[in-house]
Amino acid sequence: MAQNISEITRRSRIASIDQAVLTNDQKNSILASISEALQTHKETIFAANQKDLDEAIETNLSAPLLGRLKFDEDKLSTVCDGIEQLIALADPVGETLLATELAEGLDLYRVSCPIGVIGVIFESRPDALVQISTLCLKSGNAVLLKGGSEAKYTNRALTDIIRKASLAAGGPEGWIHLLESHADVNALLDCDKDVDLLIPRGSNEFVQYIMANTQIPVLGHADGVCHTYIDSDVDFDMAIKVVIDAKTQYVSVCNATETILLNKNLSGQFVDTLIARLQEVGVTVYGDARIAEAYNVEEISEWHHEYLDMAVSVGYVDDLEAAIRHINMYGSGHTDAILTTDEDKARIFMARVDSGNVYWNCSTRFSDGFRYGFGAEVGVSTSKIHARGPVGLAGLSTYKYKLFGSGNTVDSFATGKCKFTHKPLNQSCPW
Amino acid sequence: MAQNISEITRRSRIASIDQAVLTNDQKNSILASISEALQTHKETIFAANQKDLDEAIETNLSAPLLGRLKFDEDKLSTVCDGIEQLIALADPVGETLLATELAEGLDLYRVSCPIGVIGVIFESRPDALVQISTLCLKSGNAVLLKGGSEAKYTNRALTDIIRKASLAAGGPEGWIHLLESHADVNALLDCDKDVDLLIPRGSNEFVQYIMANTQIPVLGHADGVCHTYIDSDVDFDMAIKVVIDAKTQYVSVCNATETILLNKNLSGQFVDTLIARLQEVGVTVYGDARIAEAYNVEEISEWHHEYLDMAVSVGYVDDLEAAIRHINMYGSGHTDAILTTDEDKARIFMARVDSGNVYWNCSTRFSDGFRYGFGAEVGVSTSKIHARGPVGLAGLSTYKYKLFGSGNTVDSFATGKCKFTHKPLNQSCPW
Repeated sequence: MAQNISEITRRSRIASIDQAVLTNDQKNSILASISEALQTHKETIFAANQKDLDEAIETNLSAPLLGRLKFDEDKLSTVCDGIEQLIALADPVGETLLATELAEGLDLYRVSCPIGVIGVIFESRPDALVQISTLCLKSGNAVLLKGGSEAKYTNRALTDIIRKASLAAGGPEGWIHLLESHADVNALLDCDKDVDLLIPRGSNEFVQYIMANTQIPVLGHADGVCHTYIDSDVDFDMAIKVVIDAKTQYVSVCNATETILLNKNLSGQFVDTLIARLQEVGVTVYGDARIAEAYNVEEISEWHHEYLDMAVSVGYVDDLEAAIRHINMYGSGHTDAILTTDEDKARIFMARVDSGNVYWNCSTRFSDGFRYGFGAEVGVSTSKIHARGPVGLAGLSTYKYKLFGSGNTVDSFATGKCKFTHKPLNQSCPW
Repeated sequence: MAQNISEITRRSRIASIDQAVLTNDQKNSILASISEALQTHKETIFAANQKDLDEAIETNLSAPLLGRLKFDEDKLSTVCDGIEQLIALADPVGETLLATELAEGLDLYRVSCPIGVIGVIFESRPDALVQISTLCLKSGNAVLLKGGSEAKYTNRALTDIIRKASLAAGGPEGWIHLLESHADVNALLDCDKDVDLLIPRGSNEFVQYIMANTQIPVLGHADGVCHTYIDSDVDFDMAIKVVIDAKTQYVSVCNATETILLNKNLSGQFVDTLIARLQEVGVTVYGDARIAEAYNVEEISEWHHEYLDMAVSVGYVDDLEAAIRHINMYGSGHTDAILTTDEDKARIFMARVDSGNVYWNCSTRFSDGFRYGFGAEVGVSTSKIHARGPVGLAGLSTYKYKLFGSGNTVDSFATGKCKFTHKPLNQSCPW
């Protein structure tokens, strides 16, 4: 049965206004109540999850997908740990970002505030529902969630528990809502008046589809073609250790390295070892013409290629500038690393590579909200507008300007009776 | 002759990478060189402007539009003052926004950086070209400009002078480019790979057209339906002074008040005076049923109405909450003010009104980049994503994450060999 989505988003908008004035203590006590309820009602969640798993087994879902769908004691404990972390984080709302005396008796403050209503469309993992909704709660945003249909029973159970626990702890009505069908999502795309931001997670095609079919701003990433550039001045052992991690630690994710760029002056012996190590651990190497010939591997047809698998593109570049040009041309602005002992080269690389995350001497796999200390993330943004990289509480906030006057008119400035002082104020917004 | 816009945006992208590494001193010396060149070549500019004015007079352009088109000593002096202000402002690029030790030997910094390539489509004022391009230069962004066709000679002269002065002072090639036709703008809308942000300034219809026809993020505002709410606890003289300013100081702009909301407990005598004063200064009053009847004025048909003229909607609301609901329902999220002596009511109003600029006891006309001390603005954003309110240097910046490692792998954390510390670092990013 189709839901009346424009009516629901209108209610979300109203809830978001109430959420905007919740204090940090109020939000933390709602979060604590949610964590407690999830543990109290865990058997309900596990039973709902079993129904999803039974159906998934009947439809021959693959083992990795079954693993992602499963919501057990371990997943419960992980999401509850995540909630504890969120409680410990500072309130992202109400922070004074700028304070200026515009003139005598006229003080301006830029103050962080929630965005409002956020729609998140995510994949099969039901634990993501808890992470996303609690991030939205702590940042003061109402959220409309659409999870994978294979997790529908679990998602319903989780949403129901979160909603009731939140109400019991004094949270506003209607800040969390679960969408259930593709028709609901399509209807959501038209609600640009009451939805401020969409965060689609999933395949490249899916994200592109959302972007092409809505006027609501979309945050997220279409793909992750991450690079690791190995400079000629490098610690060989470190380089091999880091590259193997960046490529193989978990291959089906957006921050895994998909292209290894080699400085042309690297020793043949080092490159021999690198290729051998990659192949030893099961990575299929695709090369530029020189690599393809030297190591008898298949030649690359296209550099902008996201394998999400045990495979990698390897090619030579003439120098640092060529590496930077290559990454800015063929990358996706996600995460790119330089491995070098030369600080100057690292500095130039990190300044000129136009990506959300630029690394020196470490694995591209670190670009993740948990690893960055953000508690969790609603996604990784490769957009350059609003939020970049892993998006946690800060990326779910915006700001408003608060101006405190004493009867000031613009005319009195236009006629020269008053003068702007534009003096920085060393104080926070009074409220 | 149509320009090859995708080739031009590609060159802008390349220029933007060079701009990203300019130091503040370099940018300031380019700005000083531009200011000097504008003054040295002022006769060239004035002559070009005369050609535009001659053509405009032939085509019977209205007097206010002729005033906007004119570029004379006064306008020159204003834009050069603006450049001086920009030079005095801190570099928006390279600011450390977050610093965290993720683990031993693994430091994360969130550092501000330019957005990249920005397209600005603006109205007839040629002085806007100087303001926008110098804001983009100081914030490290390449800019594609399309001004009003009635200012084409002036815009060409200004762009030419800015480009040459910038090159002479060591600025990168290709960071500023003038588009000349509607066909150029339409081609620009398709360049989502090389253009990061569009800022259209102009009519509601025009902005809506841009938003509907591009996948590039759009910053700006469609309309400005600003409100002034007069509470029952208010200083009457102050309220009348501020409302008259908010409505009449300059009527054709987005931050002029279009709706006055009156608390129903305001004295009849005050409302009599207010309406009389508005009508005295030439404002046509439209009222809700009660106002329409009491003052024999026309009744409002629609609350979301931007007059941009000497006209205003006036209506009663039951209380503060009703005023907030009205503004959140019918406003455009631009600028809304409360006039009251009651601090609690002001606090609630400013927390719950979901607009980019919320004011206490002053005129809505203050929401402007110059008045906010931003030097100038590229526009006022009513979007909630990325930048809100007047958009100056900060709104033209984004950030990237820089991660400084020492050979760190994610595997060493996954296997428990290393532990995340997530310790705040009390230091700026080293470079």
